[in-house]
Amino acid sequence: MIEALRCLPGVGPKSAQRMAYHLLQRDQQGALRLSHALRHAIEVLRHCGRCNAFSESEVCERCDSPRRDASLLCVVEMPADLNMMEQTHAFNGMYYVLMGHLSPLDGIGPKELHLERLLARACDGSVREVILATNFTNEGEATAHYLGEMLRARGLKVSRIARGLPVGGEIEHTDAGTIAQALIERRSL
Amino acid sequence: MIEALRCLPGVGPKSAQRMAYHLLQRDQQGALRLSHALRHAIEVLRHCGRCNAFSESEVCERCDSPRRDASLLCVVEMPADLNMMEQTHAFNGMYYVLMGHLSPLDGIGPKELHLERLLARACDGSVREVILATNFTNEGEATAHYLGEMLRARGLKVSRIARGLPVGGEIEHTDAGTIAQALIERRSL
Repeated sequence: MIEALRCLPGVGPKSAQRMAYHLLQRDQQGALRLSHALRHAIEVLRHCGRCNAFSESEVCERCDSPRRDASLLCVVEMPADLNMMEQTHAFNGMYYVLMGHLSPLDGIGPKELHLERLLARACDGSVREVILATNFTNEGEATAHYLGEMLRARGLKVSRIARGLPVGGEIEHTDAGTIAQALIERRSL
Repeated sequence: MIEALRCLPGVGPKSAQRMAYHLLQRDQQGALRLSHALRHAIEVLRHCGRCNAFSESEVCERCDSPRRDASLLCVVEMPADLNMMEQTHAFNGMYYVLMGHLSPLDGIGPKELHLERLLARACDGSVREVILATNFTNEGEATAHYLGEMLRARGLKVSRIARGLPVGGEIEHTDAGTIAQALIERRSL
């Protein structure tokens, strides 16, 4: 059990031992719940056939909802990003989750990310605009660049979420790179 | 001397006393240098007639430089903002320093900020575009809005620096308000 607990990220031998003793001595119910939840998730969860996020059904509830705007497709790296976007209540379109980003040094190219699935989804006739919402890290930017070229080549309208100063941000306390971008990408009033 | 040192921001009676003893016992040279620098600055510094920043001459070196693009005028709140913009090396136009922002609750309106001076500067015939680079705080945004209306009414082209995710920013670690803005102000690729 100690050995098995070490599959959890950030858990070394000491933590694993402490967790094991805690569960056995103080929380056997919790251990059983965890055991069940793990098995249930592994058996039941799969990738939604439309957005590629985790789902219990073939097509997830979000992709199946008639209340969402099917003409907007927002591409994010991970399910956590999708959750953050949803928390803004500013987007009511559809999503596609890459489950990573391009990272040639780690051997993750277009094939490994199964970008052909995104392409098929974006070209299924319902999508009017693809919004690239990958991170503004090096990998996220490279991924957005690649996706932009790929999708525009198919005649799709593609946009990128804005770079600039955060809400509440002050020039004096912002890094030079961000200020430079905010200047370059200034908006006409 | 202790009483006088308390005019420095953040210096209470204890700090002032510590500073005074330090200067008298350990750094009389420093005290004289400070005395001279204060007097020199007060006697010599004034506001540049063009950009309103502090300057030793009627028109500051920056405003007088033929190497800068006179067709772009960037409006910032404070001299510290101007310094940050310069550190980016991304802007080679002219500046106008408001020396504050609109703040009706503190009795600072268009008249107190002498916005007629900015208007005269922006309308002097050399400026093609005014870039509003006030902060993205409530006051900075309100000031940008007011300036935008005022300058556009004179037929000037006006833009606002971009709001969005910072360089290197990750969706998962960005506040909801900023993500919402980054979505609204997305750029076509």
